[in-house]
Amino acid sequence: MTIEIMSKKEQFEKILKEIRDQSPLVHNITNYVVMNNTANALLAIGASPVMAHAIEEVEEITSIVSALVINMGTLSPKWVEAMEIAIKKANALNKPVVFDPVGVGASTYRTETALKIIESYKPSVIRGNASEILALTQLSNNTKGVDSTISSENALHAAQELSKKLNNTIVISGATDYIITGENIDKVTTGKPIMAKVTGMGCTATSIIGSCIAVNPNYHMASYLAMELMGEAGNMAEKISKGTGSFQMNFIDALYQIANEK
Amino acid sequence: MTIEIMSKKEQFEKILKEIRDQSPLVHNITNYVVMNNTANALLAIGASPVMAHAIEEVEEITSIVSALVINMGTLSPKWVEAMEIAIKKANALNKPVVFDPVGVGASTYRTETALKIIESYKPSVIRGNASEILALTQLSNNTKGVDSTISSENALHAAQELSKKLNNTIVISGATDYIITGENIDKVTTGKPIMAKVTGMGCTATSIIGSCIAVNPNYHMASYLAMELMGEAGNMAEKISKGTGSFQMNFIDALYQIANEK
Amino acid sequence: MTIEIMSKKEQFEKILKEIRDQSPLVHNITNYVVMNNTANALLAIGASPVMAHAIEEVEEITSIVSALVINMGTLSPKWVEAMEIAIKKANALNKPVVFDPVGVGASTYRTETALKIIESYKPSVIRGNASEILALTQLSNNTKGVDSTISSENALHAAQELSKKLNNTIVISGATDYIITGENIDKVTTGKPIMAKVTGMGCTATSIIGSCIAVNPNYHMASYLAMELMGEAGNMAEKISKGTGSFQMNFIDALYQIANEK
Repeated sequence: MTIEIMSKKEQFEKILKEIRDQSPLVHNITNYVVMNNTANALLAIGASPVMAHAIEEVEEITSIVSALVINMGTLSPKWVEAMEIAIKKANALNKPVVFDPVGVGASTYRTETALKIIESYKPSVIRGNASEILALTQLSNNTKGVDSTISSENALHAAQELSKKLNNTIVISGATDYIITGENIDKVTTGKPIMAKVTGMGCTATSIIGSCIAVNPNYHMASYLAMELMGEAGNMAEKISKGTGSFQMNFIDALYQIANEK
Repeated sequence: MTIEIMSKKEQFEKILKEIRDQSPLVHNITNYVVMNNTANALLAIGASPVMAHAIEEVEEITSIVSALVINMGTLSPKWVEAMEIAIKKANALNKPVVFDPVGVGASTYRTETALKIIESYKPSVIRGNASEILALTQLSNNTKGVDSTISSENALHAAQELSKKLNNTIVISGATDYIITGENIDKVTTGKPIMAKVTGMGCTATSIIGSCIAVNPNYHMASYLAMELMGEAGNMAEKISKGTGSFQMNFIDALYQIANEK
Repeated sequence: MTIEIMSKKEQFEKILKEIRDQSPLVHNITNYVVMNNTANALLAIGASPVMAHAIEEVEEITSIVSALVINMGTLSPKWVEAMEIAIKKANALNKPVVFDPVGVGASTYRTETALKIIESYKPSVIRGNASEILALTQLSNNTKGVDSTISSENALHAAQELSKKLNNTIVISGATDYIITGENIDKVTTGKPIMAKVTGMGCTATSIIGSCIAVNPNYHMASYLAMELMGEAGNMAEKISKGTGSFQMNFIDALYQIANEK
């Protein structure tokens, strides 16, 4: 892996430049709650977000983008059908896919949908909090809505098993973020507790991963750099915020500043 | 009622602590326009928002939450069906429900849906502006979209009749907010006119009521404290805002500050 | 045209006053990503936004509003059906309609939907970026998602042909905005590059046009003044923003300040 050849700092600057230069189209089939934040986060770093969910067009949209983001936050049958069509197309065209199993474990429908997606389509990267990753591996059914009440460390073993089974990269986000690809584990510790109190920060991380895997075929490294970017922006935003409202705004500003200064 | 035993200030601090300590799951079946704000408002005070509307999962989700919020802002048949399934389940499990009849009176479909919900399922609390509350009681059909052009005072009598008929709590929000449970009427006067110029402030109030009734079975008191919280946060935000954009952000910051300092 | 009788500055102040005084109801059938921003932008200038998309109510809603905004950002069959019902009703009642063909050219479904809407219903005003306007005129199929990679100037001739064919007003937004009604061309040059990095600024422009044509039957002038308002607010916001997050907020504040000071 290039991680040994180039320093992480150099990798970080390189991927930001690649996103800025290529402005990759990232297709998001995501939830209603976070669409605005997600689009702004992608635009802030120079990527081009596309939000499209109609069964009539997702296959065609997926065929023109550089990466696909599937987020099941506010799922329903038509949307799940669209997710399946899109991910099938992405697989056929060998395009990277990141999957966010929001709230898996909170209902049978969510669990079944998530399991179908990971088992039938093997997404390149899966990002969730510890509860979600545990639920995915069926080791636990105690997901509390979309929040994590389990520490990342507890999900580490399960994530590693899942990564080996799917031959992909698993990202557990939390106080410490873990990026796991088989035996390869990296971590990011720059995240701030306030990020858990702002809606959609996890979903934003997933879409940022989407824009990183769009330009870098090393999905482990790309996911690691995406979480570094989240952590650095979170750190900058936290210093100047007076609450979660200003944090949400300052976080987008920070992404914009980081992406445009390097 | 405990209102005589404990001062309102003590009640206010108590309910904030209960929300913070219990972090109640609040299930929102709400409109597309406000979902992000609503989720952030609930997170800011320490509650755990869940947004889920699929017919395939709402019953299961309602069964694990502490309160249900039904908001018909951008209604459509599938969503109304989900609202009915969820509220039926909440009633069966004796869980509190708050209903926001957004824009009732603006179309036959809205009026019929709202009347069906209040007559078949008797929500614990109903919150609307004066026009909406009047439309609900069929005393008026002159709703102007989702804005109120009628003063809260004019809807007071109608609200009281409705409260007696449904044996529940009605909240009229406006320049003065009224909390009405039969003969029992409380008011909150700290709201600011700018709040009517920011989308979704009423919807946020409804969800805040949802998190208060999740932890306090005295729905009248819980609704009153929710409106006090809205007023206090609005007051704080208004002082430092330069327009409606910054108000929306400062309001979330204020909720976060109030919830975390008391 | 009154443009010769009254200065543009006077026209600008006049239309702001009319929106403030009449508080026109503007019916938006728009996309999930921008609904919150759109509603806040309309409220900031004194208009009354209504978001409603159910087939069961759109005809009735359109019949009580002053203008209709159709935006196909996150289209799907039910929504397209609602758009058609609403625009048919608006045409029957001679109410102004503005159409935003978001991402036309990015998929066959989008292109077909957009062409059906413009050919069957001839919206009063169409606003898009240069790529979208070119795609609409079928001169190009190289739309890159929802962003424009073609300069406004390149789409000018196509827009003029389209305006003559439809006998309506076309607005091309970009570094320079063009307002085109047959031989009549006006431009606005106050827009800022950062606006292309904030999601939904084009959609906001479309809705602002909606509120201007709601109060002024000279659609060319109304569209011009709407783009002037966008440019002036963008200019004010850009001066005090540290990134795209704060720009989005400051832009709403600027609209609010401009609308309330004139």
